Amino acid sequence: MIQPATESRSVIVEREIAFPPEKIWRALTQPHLIEEWLMKSDFKPVIGHRFNLRGEWGGVLDCEVLAIEPEKTLSYTWNFAHDDDAFDLRSVVTFTLTPTSKGTHLRMEQVGFRPDQKQAYGGARVGWQQFLENLEQLVARID
Amino acid sequence: MIQPATESRSVIVEREIAFPPEKIWRALTQPHLIEEWLMKSDFKPVIGHRFNLRGEWGGVLDCEVLAIEPEKTLSYTWNFAHDDDAFDLRSVVTFTLTPTSKGTHLRMEQVGFRPDQKQAYGGARVGWQQFLENLEQLVARID
Repeated sequence: MIQPATESRSVIVEREIAFPPEKIWRALTQPHLIEEWLMKSDFKPVIGHRFNLRGEWGGVLDCEVLAIEPEKTLSYTWNFAHDDDAFDLRSVVTFTLTPTSKGTHLRMEQVGFRPDQKQAYGGARVGWQQFLENLEQLVARID
Repeated sequence: MIQPATESRSVIVEREIAFPPEKIWRALTQPHLIEEWLMKSDFKPVIGHRFNLRGEWGGVLDCEVLAIEPEKTLSYTWNFAHDDDAFDLRSVVTFTLTPTSKGTHLRMEQVGFRPDQKQAYGGARVGWQQFLENLEQLVARID
């Protein structure tokens, strides 16, 4: 059997949210809302748009919009440049929204963790749970 | 009047905490506690020790212990390397603990924001309020 040249691991977090895709889509794509559940950003829903996500402690992610299908799919790069390979992350985040009888099934997949990036992978698993919890609370608050 | 070659701004956050310095010192210096209120780290209370603070979304700070006076002062670099000058941060964080009749006066000063780093500066002001709030809650929980 031939081994792939590069292996990568994914973090997948799914969540049933009792609101329609339209509302969740706004939380995913409007900077003043993105800031509430994720981080500050200069996101725009335009393919090829480069933006940053900025943590309050000075950390910054480099991102680029890869795919948009309104109220269905949003995909962007989620890159973190660091001299140390253990921390240098080249990943892609994809959100998929599926309407259900009770609201929306939201799926987040982050692809691109190398097998040696155990800390980043473990952190992302915890982090996305929290981010999507924040998102659900936000969506419940907004009109 | 001669302008200094480099100007920098500081973020200062102070907090009265109803617990003795000894307990707060543990929260500042033990990695399993630092993780609870700040970030994951491989901190050691040794001058010159280099360590990282790691956010759950993949971001990483590069740090080095500069000064330690047990239960009184802790100082370390808080650096974030980025190609974009607006995000590249070279700063120093200093915690100062002063015993009071009711517990401890905790002072945090982060020095080194350039005048053009408004986002990082604004983020740190909000971020440190939250970090020290987390720290106070942690200290109330531990023995």
